[in-house]
Amino acid sequence: MEFTFLGTSGGMPTKARNVTALALQHGAPRHWYLIDCGEGTQHQLLRTRLSVMQLQAIFITHAHGDHTFGLPGLLCSASMNGRTEPLFLIAPRPVWNFVESALGNTDSSLSYELKFLDSEAEDFYWEDHALQVTTTELSHRVSCRAFSFTEKNLERQLLKEKLVADGIGAGPAWGALQKGEDVILDNGTLIRSGDYTTVNRAPRKVVIGGDNDNPDLLAAACNKAQVLIHEATYTQEVADRVGSWPQHSSAAQVARFAQSAGLPNLILTHFSSRYQYNPNTKPYIGEVEAEAAGLYRGNLFMARDFARYQLSRNGILEATEPQGFPAQPGSGQRPSHDKARDQHD
Amino acid sequence: MEFTFLGTSGGMPTKARNVTALALQHGAPRHWYLIDCGEGTQHQLLRTRLSVMQLQAIFITHAHGDHTFGLPGLLCSASMNGRTEPLFLIAPRPVWNFVESALGNTDSSLSYELKFLDSEAEDFYWEDHALQVTTTELSHRVSCRAFSFTEKNLERQLLKEKLVADGIGAGPAWGALQKGEDVILDNGTLIRSGDYTTVNRAPRKVVIGGDNDNPDLLAAACNKAQVLIHEATYTQEVADRVGSWPQHSSAAQVARFAQSAGLPNLILTHFSSRYQYNPNTKPYIGEVEAEAAGLYRGNLFMARDFARYQLSRNGILEATEPQGFPAQPGSGQRPSHDKARDQHD
Repeated sequence: MEFTFLGTSGGMPTKARNVTALALQHGAPRHWYLIDCGEGTQHQLLRTRLSVMQLQAIFITHAHGDHTFGLPGLLCSASMNGRTEPLFLIAPRPVWNFVESALGNTDSSLSYELKFLDSEAEDFYWEDHALQVTTTELSHRVSCRAFSFTEKNLERQLLKEKLVADGIGAGPAWGALQKGEDVILDNGTLIRSGDYTTVNRAPRKVVIGGDNDNPDLLAAACNKAQVLIHEATYTQEVADRVGSWPQHSSAAQVARFAQSAGLPNLILTHFSSRYQYNPNTKPYIGEVEAEAAGLYRGNLFMARDFARYQLSRNGILEATEPQGFPAQPGSGQRPSHDKARDQHD
Repeated sequence: MEFTFLGTSGGMPTKARNVTALALQHGAPRHWYLIDCGEGTQHQLLRTRLSVMQLQAIFITHAHGDHTFGLPGLLCSASMNGRTEPLFLIAPRPVWNFVESALGNTDSSLSYELKFLDSEAEDFYWEDHALQVTTTELSHRVSCRAFSFTEKNLERQLLKEKLVADGIGAGPAWGALQKGEDVILDNGTLIRSGDYTTVNRAPRKVVIGGDNDNPDLLAAACNKAQVLIHEATYTQEVADRVGSWPQHSSAAQVARFAQSAGLPNLILTHFSSRYQYNPNTKPYIGEVEAEAAGLYRGNLFMARDFARYQLSRNGILEATEPQGFPAQPGSGQRPSHDKARDQHD
């Protein structure tokens, strides 16, 4: 199970960070899922090995533009590339309306079926061959949901001694049982996979939050999760100055929650465009990291664009691409109007 | 008068070219105008000195997504930066509908007034302090307009001998007359600027086409224009293979028209995403250039992203940034499905 951050900025892009999007790779080779789709997500994809042709489903946490404005372009480019496989768009209803209006008013038709599913349905549940997905309601200026992804179809170990003891010798039946299939032997006996195999590890589970000013809402969802990916738009000091209106989390809030929930891994993202990667230009993004590190004892990661993480079968999260902040002095956004931005991250 | 190409790809972005957008700088320092706004235009702007705070008006040639999907993000970012000055959006009505739906469905409000003007009104004419703008109907799959920009308020030369002969001595009156203002002398005489000044050059005029399969439609608009900027989506060979459905121009079509119209300068843009900047990867974009160069004897330019051009007061067009194609082997798009793309550039 692998994650690729395609955008880690809140509100608007900077030279170093695009607005929010995250790729989750799992299941069949090259199959992947997209969580949020800020403007320029399709451009970011051109710099990865991910292709819109193998995209299985798009999940949108909430309707704000920094999480959705990339949808029309990405959907049209998939069509121009000749996609025919249906694509799920799992999102709040206003996002469907936005997409339908964008396609309709720009004379755009898709070469494949776009299957809308309401992420805010009360009994929401979605699964495919590889993953099961549930939602958690968050607290933000607009309706917003976290998505919890739990893997399915874990690899089974054969109970060989029991098989031999019951007179079922090695052969094609063993392979079928290991795949989870029940088998009828030549003598007509039904052999159930569940009786002769075992799954000897926990399923991987990842919780991906949207914008949210109350991480505690994720307490139940984070049960048995190895990873939480959550926004940390600013430090507590900036959050206090900005006031409660934007309804974002500070690094301190998320870190405290992750610590109390006993989460082994926390990845922070969705940083305010004010934060710079150059330590000599204030505010420095290292302040966000330092605040979280002071309150959380698990493995803390600061997402950056194109950072990749691998979650192994035994639940260990490792960065597979160089970590830390890009060493690009002046790579943040241009000087801007901080006061105005305070209202909009 | 200066032009900065922010995107030069048709249909979809590649690693080397974004979808269509063009900045025109003229008038007051840092004032500029945007023509078309494909997805990622605001990202491109971060790599220029242009700011959405000084943007005077946006002109959209037609509704297709590769010319419009960047609008919601750019408009919202201007708001997050605290813009208060009204902004003109001069576009076909479906583009207004797209923008209004995008803002409405994503809970986005703007900090400034967006003034819609219908670019397809029969008597369309727009002007501000620096430019007058007219439209020409083109031939494309959807309704599409070219915009002709003609400069206003050209600098005046004082007719000093006449002033002296008429007893009007050097003084503040001369300055006012040169600015185009009429003056009342101390003795009560009205002195008209037009009688004592002259404009000794032609106004600069630039025609910026949208998508169009019939350049001849621009014959009247190109009268007295120094520059035509027009799409050349592919070579004639590819255009013939693709067929007439997409309604684009080949390089040969545009070059023949520019030659017959006696245009001194032609800038080609909106190249199919298939074209590569690496001469060893086919199809090579140099094929498009060679086709045009064989039929057009004026100054031919192949636009590329971030290329800048200056049109001097005497009508000379010069590239102010390094020209030619980026020397980035493999910098084009990933291998894709040519046949599907034929239908969608």
